[in-house]
Amino acid sequence: MDPAELKAIVRTIPDFPKPGILFRDITTLIAHGRGFAATIDRLVDRAQMADASAVAGIEARGFIFGAAVAARLGIGFVPLRKPGKLPLDTIGIDYQLEYGDARLELDPNAIDTGEKVLLMDDLLATGGTACAAVDLLREAGAHVHHALFVIDLHELGGGEKLRAAGVTSQAIMQFGNE
Amino acid sequence: MDPAELKAIVRTIPDFPKPGILFRDITTLIAHGRGFAATIDRLVDRAQMADASAVAGIEARGFIFGAAVAARLGIGFVPLRKPGKLPLDTIGIDYQLEYGDARLELDPNAIDTGEKVLLMDDLLATGGTACAAVDLLREAGAHVHHALFVIDLHELGGGEKLRAAGVTSQAIMQFGNE
Repeated sequence: MDPAELKAIVRTIPDFPKPGILFRDITTLIAHGRGFAATIDRLVDRAQMADASAVAGIEARGFIFGAAVAARLGIGFVPLRKPGKLPLDTIGIDYQLEYGDARLELDPNAIDTGEKVLLMDDLLATGGTACAAVDLLREAGAHVHHALFVIDLHELGGGEKLRAAGVTSQAIMQFGNE
Repeated sequence: MDPAELKAIVRTIPDFPKPGILFRDITTLIAHGRGFAATIDRLVDRAQMADASAVAGIEARGFIFGAAVAARLGIGFVPLRKPGKLPLDTIGIDYQLEYGDARLELDPNAIDTGEKVLLMDDLLATGGTACAAVDLLREAGAHVHHALFVIDLHELGGGEKLRAAGVTSQAIMQFGNE
């Protein structure tokens, strides 16, 4: 399945979570057996080029794609979790989202100092969460130069924000505000 | 890697989340590239026997294993989510856990009536969450006869509870209270 076919399986929900927003919903993509497998194949192709030794995925939809890619590449998966989910040692970062405050946590033992880590999530919007994730991974000692998404809402500028932080981002589908 | 080697990578945290509990933590297993890939290989072998057309995974650790297995089998992945996460239509189930009340939700459009669905999660303990997930999937029209876990804390009786609900459970590792 090519990117245009995959895009057609993504469901668009108008005015969610608030008026004027077109929500791109991957529920329909992952429920589609061939579509989901093709999505992972395409992500694996891109991920290989990052030459990373681990994938870090952002809770919760980033787990769906990131873990599948890590398992296919035979590299580790590091979950970036919502607060209070990880046992033992954690380090965390607080950041601001359009709709309020948020926090991500990780287990620093899961990262080796100097390890190359690929950041993954389902969707890149303004880049606020992704940049917080990059900062947190770097605080744990990771080298982060690449981020990979299923969907990039390119008009929202997340790619530029990541680039300013020294991270190249890729996505297998682009959506505008159409 | 054989099951004994995989078990050795799982981290045991005593007295978490409360005194007397040995918490089995998969963070170390998924961070281990070869261990994670071997875990997914073993899950895929078991999952094939369930002959399902979709995998349903329980948020959030069930996403890590369930989505990777679904993508490998080329079948759909249905996330069973915490409340308020899914857009549009949802159906939900409230249930009791040892530490309080909980709720799972799913998008009923993700399930075809009569579809065979394999339930997956990281860990089977008393089976409370797993049985609620089975009830919810059946309410959406799924046939659920098999459940698959990475870890079964077999002394806690989850397997019996699922069997009483007409579901055969398997896990690639068993842990007792040792």
